[in-house]
Amino acid sequence: MKTLAKPRTPATPGWELQNLGRRAPRSLRHARDLSTARRIVATAEEIFAEQGLAGARMDEIARAAKVNKALLYYYFRSKEELHRFVLKALLSQLSARVTETGTVLPSPGKRLNMVVDHFFDFVLRHPNYPRLIQREIMSRGPNMEWIVSEYYRPLHGRLVRLIEEGISAGEFRRVDAQNAALTVVSIMVHYFAAAPVLRSVLGHDPLRPREVEKRRTAVHDFLEHGLFRPGARTA
Amino acid sequence: MKTLAKPRTPATPGWELQNLGRRAPRSLRHARDLSTARRIVATAEEIFAEQGLAGARMDEIARAAKVNKALLYYYFRSKEELHRFVLKALLSQLSARVTETGTVLPSPGKRLNMVVDHFFDFVLRHPNYPRLIQREIMSRGPNMEWIVSEYYRPLHGRLVRLIEEGISAGEFRRVDAQNAALTVVSIMVHYFAAAPVLRSVLGHDPLRPREVEKRRTAVHDFLEHGLFRPGARTA
Repeated sequence: MKTLAKPRTPATPGWELQNLGRRAPRSLRHARDLSTARRIVATAEEIFAEQGLAGARMDEIARAAKVNKALLYYYFRSKEELHRFVLKALLSQLSARVTETGTVLPSPGKRLNMVVDHFFDFVLRHPNYPRLIQREIMSRGPNMEWIVSEYYRPLHGRLVRLIEEGISAGEFRRVDAQNAALTVVSIMVHYFAAAPVLRSVLGHDPLRPREVEKRRTAVHDFLEHGLFRPGARTA
Repeated sequence: MKTLAKPRTPATPGWELQNLGRRAPRSLRHARDLSTARRIVATAEEIFAEQGLAGARMDEIARAAKVNKALLYYYFRSKEELHRFVLKALLSQLSARVTETGTVLPSPGKRLNMVVDHFFDFVLRHPNYPRLIQREIMSRGPNMEWIVSEYYRPLHGRLVRLIEEGISAGEFRRVDAQNAALTVVSIMVHYFAAAPVLRSVLGHDPLRPREVEKRRTAVHDFLEHGLFRPGARTA
């Protein structure tokens, strides 16, 4: 894969398009070499985050991804299809279950810590994700409906059940599981969603890997004390 | 004050325009009766939250607030001035220090709980606030600069110092105060910012007073265990 000179074009690792199965357009499912498609999607992620669906132009995406427009339209028939695909590809990666290596399921507490790490790893690879979603929320576009029904509602349900399991197992305090799930999401998501403001409030870039790792540690620490029963803490 | 028939027009309590001093336009500072101005501002808050600065029209604001356009322009010379005033009025109320009734300052822990209650009381009165701010962040408009320098940076600084005081006093655990301040803000703000999505994820209105009170209790509970040292818990 060619290295791109333009600094705004993000790296493509983290785009495992081959795992998307039927969520991918036909053209992608039959492509032999996905590196061009990956470059298009990574570039589109950046441009849609920056300019929104209405502001972004296919011309500009083609130019920044260094493909000609005919090839861009071969993969994605319209700007809307490309936009929807970027969102689906991101959400599938976000909601992928953390792979279990053994046959025995880790304890709810360990699984909660894995959820946190999975989220941080995901946002490190896709820092535009919170902005893309915020744009959907603000514009009240047609995408929010499937985003909620296919991804957010199931994700919230899994998190609530995980917390309930942890309470039953005596690992977590007896909290309101619905609200605890919202708290877990808040302390992970808000930092990234507010990044443009935090940059100016804090006087440094909150998305620098060092700062993100400090945030990850703080989130684990806060959950450890806020949610786990004293005897069940892992650290 | 007249009761308005139109259901979208919010109630005006919570708009203490007389306390804004030099932040208010001259016309407001010299007005004898502020009830009309209050109605304009409350209506504008709603319409700007719904449609953004670009989408909102002064005609519509005048009609919904039941004032004629000449009077609207007497108070606020332009849509931009009205918009800026709505933001300033909200932010001044948000960042008002909680009044101390006695001469002795409450402990850092008690003051933190007062900060949480102040925020919840504020958002109950101004549920449009998170959306108005998100619009500013997304549009990267010229307002973010003064919002950060006049309000958010000082607020963040006060919160960090409060947490550091609590650590020194032995009331809070030895946490990373910068990140703890961001955590406190996250668990309060994200719930309201995400309300349009949560409505659909949860299947009920998260802004119903009963739900907001459950959230307030959950936030206090989470801070109690996540931040306070076991011996210093207030509940």
